[in-house]
Amino acid sequence: MTRGFYIGRFQPYHNGHHNVVQSIAEEVDELVLGIGSAGDSHSQHDPFTAGERIMMITKSLVDSDLVTYAVPIEDLDRNSVWVSHVQSMSPDFDVAYSNNPLVIRLFEEAGVEVRQSPMYDRHVLEGTEVRDRMIAGDDWESLVPDAVVEVVEETGGLERIQRVSDSDSNGE
Amino acid sequence: MTRGFYIGRFQPYHNGHHNVVQSIAEEVDELVLGIGSAGDSHSQHDPFTAGERIMMITKSLVDSDLVTYAVPIEDLDRNSVWVSHVQSMSPDFDVAYSNNPLVIRLFEEAGVEVRQSPMYDRHVLEGTEVRDRMIAGDDWESLVPDAVVEVVEETGGLERIQRVSDSDSNGE
Amino acid sequence: MTRGFYIGRFQPYHNGHHNVVQSIAEEVDELVLGIGSAGDSHSQHDPFTAGERIMMITKSLVDSDLVTYAVPIEDLDRNSVWVSHVQSMSPDFDVAYSNNPLVIRLFEEAGVEVRQSPMYDRHVLEGTEVRDRMIAGDDWESLVPDAVVEVVEETGGLERIQRVSDSDSNGE
Amino acid sequence: MTRGFYIGRFQPYHNGHHNVVQSIAEEVDELVLGIGSAGDSHSQHDPFTAGERIMMITKSLVDSDLVTYAVPIEDLDRNSVWVSHVQSMSPDFDVAYSNNPLVIRLFEEAGVEVRQSPMYDRHVLEGTEVRDRMIAGDDWESLVPDAVVEVVEETGGLERIQRVSDSDSNGE
Amino acid sequence: MTRGFYIGRFQPYHNGHHNVVQSIAEEVDELVLGIGSAGDSHSQHDPFTAGERIMMITKSLVDSDLVTYAVPIEDLDRNSVWVSHVQSMSPDFDVAYSNNPLVIRLFEEAGVEVRQSPMYDRHVLEGTEVRDRMIAGDDWESLVPDAVVEVVEETGGLERIQRVSDSDSNGE
Amino acid sequence: MTRGFYIGRFQPYHNGHHNVVQSIAEEVDELVLGIGSAGDSHSQHDPFTAGERIMMITKSLVDSDLVTYAVPIEDLDRNSVWVSHVQSMSPDFDVAYSNNPLVIRLFEEAGVEVRQSPMYDRHVLEGTEVRDRMIAGDDWESLVPDAVVEVVEETGGLERIQRVSDSDSNGE
Repeated sequence: MTRGFYIGRFQPYHNGHHNVVQSIAEEVDELVLGIGSAGDSHSQHDPFTAGERIMMITKSLVDSDLVTYAVPIEDLDRNSVWVSHVQSMSPDFDVAYSNNPLVIRLFEEAGVEVRQSPMYDRHVLEGTEVRDRMIAGDDWESLVPDAVVEVVEETGGLERIQRVSDSDSNGE
Repeated sequence: MTRGFYIGRFQPYHNGHHNVVQSIAEEVDELVLGIGSAGDSHSQHDPFTAGERIMMITKSLVDSDLVTYAVPIEDLDRNSVWVSHVQSMSPDFDVAYSNNPLVIRLFEEAGVEVRQSPMYDRHVLEGTEVRDRMIAGDDWESLVPDAVVEVVEETGGLERIQRVSDSDSNGE
Repeated sequence: MTRGFYIGRFQPYHNGHHNVVQSIAEEVDELVLGIGSAGDSHSQHDPFTAGERIMMITKSLVDSDLVTYAVPIEDLDRNSVWVSHVQSMSPDFDVAYSNNPLVIRLFEEAGVEVRQSPMYDRHVLEGTEVRDRMIAGDDWESLVPDAVVEVVEETGGLERIQRVSDSDSNGE
Repeated sequence: MTRGFYIGRFQPYHNGHHNVVQSIAEEVDELVLGIGSAGDSHSQHDPFTAGERIMMITKSLVDSDLVTYAVPIEDLDRNSVWVSHVQSMSPDFDVAYSNNPLVIRLFEEAGVEVRQSPMYDRHVLEGTEVRDRMIAGDDWESLVPDAVVEVVEETGGLERIQRVSDSDSNGE
Repeated sequence: MTRGFYIGRFQPYHNGHHNVVQSIAEEVDELVLGIGSAGDSHSQHDPFTAGERIMMITKSLVDSDLVTYAVPIEDLDRNSVWVSHVQSMSPDFDVAYSNNPLVIRLFEEAGVEVRQSPMYDRHVLEGTEVRDRMIAGDDWESLVPDAVVEVVEETGGLERIQRVSDSDSNGE
Repeated sequence: MTRGFYIGRFQPYHNGHHNVVQSIAEEVDELVLGIGSAGDSHSQHDPFTAGERIMMITKSLVDSDLVTYAVPIEDLDRNSVWVSHVQSMSPDFDVAYSNNPLVIRLFEEAGVEVRQSPMYDRHVLEGTEVRDRMIAGDDWESLVPDAVVEVVEETGGLERIQRVSDSDSNGE
């Protein structure tokens, strides 16, 4: 039995993530999706709560044969203990998937096997693109699984990100 | 669709918890199990990591018809914001289950419906009893689901709690 | 112009505190009441929020000629920086009042003048006594200013402390 | 009796804030001024301590008929619990005043009534403008209440902000 | 070259610690003394600051041939990341010395070699005994290296522990 | 006996720092080197752990006649208590050395004597320059003491900073 670990902020969970998961599914029996920066929400960069992101992931993968776990990981803001923190919060895993150089380095220094997650079309599918379209009122629904559209609608997520995105440019 | 929320430390997940879950299952469609004090581990009072407890819960409920989520909740050590913290980490829920007076009070002040979780035989099934038996080398396996026995064995959990239980009485 | 500083948890603000304030009033022009452990609430030892304690103090002293400030001070849990923390949160003060040996020592090491606050009948007026009577349903109203009775009633404080006081003796 | 809540960093309290308070005064009986980022000080963006800001506000409003409370609010850096945090630190309030989109959104999601605070001449009165003038040695006194000038002078605040403003452009 | 790691609170550094260090010196070339609970001070249980404890250790070992490092380690209050935290704060080490069951367990789970530190007369030399004698005014000087007596005298440490030891039994 | 205090992030300890230390050595008998942002590591701005920086400093100064202490100082992110924090972590010192305006201001407000550290050729020796050369693969060895080259090589520090420096420009 092989269990993988895949970390992301999933703000929101989009087709790029979904393709990566489906690709990883061919290599592992079970997969933990670590929801990074779990405590952050209600900002342009991190609009959704950990609970909302759990729903996005769980509902998007409900028909998958892969056994998955969606686990929120709060920030500790200390790179040197990050791997230990992740390992304590997650079911035990054999291999970590990431394209992020810092994440790769931290796992490697800790002796954890890391595989580059299979690439996907970054220009279209990046989280930034999805969030920008949400704010602008452009088509974002085609970039995410249907289940994510449902969660965003139920939680008023579209109105939220449009509202809070004004904050950064707002002085005092 | 009704979703319930049931919080506990689950150190470990035992038959008492399991009976409560099965009883709640008759009232809700989905259930979130909030794993409290998620950051605590390796002590007599809190021997298991959040990741290990996720495994105990998930494996114990794998054959259940109930849709369940096991969500680690780190301590914030501030009662006045605890409900908001829980709500941000958990999928949205309609009713909370607890017998703990503080938890009940906090949810009530926040306007969340709380139901007393159905009672179970507390004297035998309390977590303290399970942990004491683990330390003493007495029969603890009969007090927990089989899946929990497996998780404890795989993680060396029995040796761990026996070892760290010496720390409290150890001066400097 | 002389400004004094008087720290306490004020759980709740009672006649003992009130007598101390009236005694200090003869020595200073203005008085800062530092509300310690401001983040703690909803427990038997610390039932009331900082906001509720601000109300108790402000309303109890509304007719006083003394200029007072009620300032919540959150715990930093580090004695060595506590005085600096207090000084940053409080209007500048010339003298600190306390009977607590730790507080006295910390101010003295920092070069702040400390005066023993005038003594009052400790056996009856201690906060512990007030809280115990609240829980037992005995007369506690005679131990606090009338304004405190009002605040406790408006916030449902009596029910709260009676409810949460059951938590400590409650296993899992 | 209606009590309002108005949050700001008040770095420093300036005429723009003062006009807003006077406008709110026509709608409420009491007003809580929440001093945000209370733990921040000694930087170009946040030069003054919470204690100094309490003094600015209290002295500026000493002749007002409005009953006011100046309450420091330390950052929790977690939007999802921010409203609960504010509510625990503040006397109970009926309506919140803000023009900040994030603050408005957070209060709305928590079911708290929010009113846009009456607008004032933002270009001249923003805190950034006041701080820039302080650093440049230009006229800033005309942009703040007289009481604020006094507090800044007594605490050596002008020298402080001029000194620390060099830090950002200072390498290692 | 072999470097060892020896953790303690060193409140204060006493002859028991000193004997352990001298015994370890026969097995390693360099030794890191990790000063645990570095942020705690001014209490009966933890009277001395990290800086004072650095002085005690450094001065007591100044004539030793062993190369030593005295490194303060602040608490993280999370056992699962404690080893990573220690490793990031300390020069790299090959073997850890401890008699504390929790510490031993945590290092072992992280794959670090642990040796039981050579035993010493615990009944007389425990830190608790030294602190109790300090408070009672009994002979404590014979239980610690001469350099520690000097540091305690220079910092007013004896008066400090006697004063703060009254705090615990002091109600409010 | 005069003891000085010199704070820096020392990412890494370079010839500029080394020249400052040698210059300070003419004015003091002992010198504490406070290692700032001790908890930060594995980023482009802060590549090395506190433990690695202790090694760099200790090995670089091993032949110096000056008695030195290398003390990690974790961030508290609160300027108003920073001096107290430093004082608790460090052996007692008489004078602080710094060219950083914020540090100078904080020490001055706390009544600590501050001396401008003797200037050195900033353009070449800044830490930013050293780190940029490390990343680019240019000559960085000539900008640091030989002992620092050794530590960087032993810890794989060069590969680490080159790897993590890609993270900032990496979307999700």
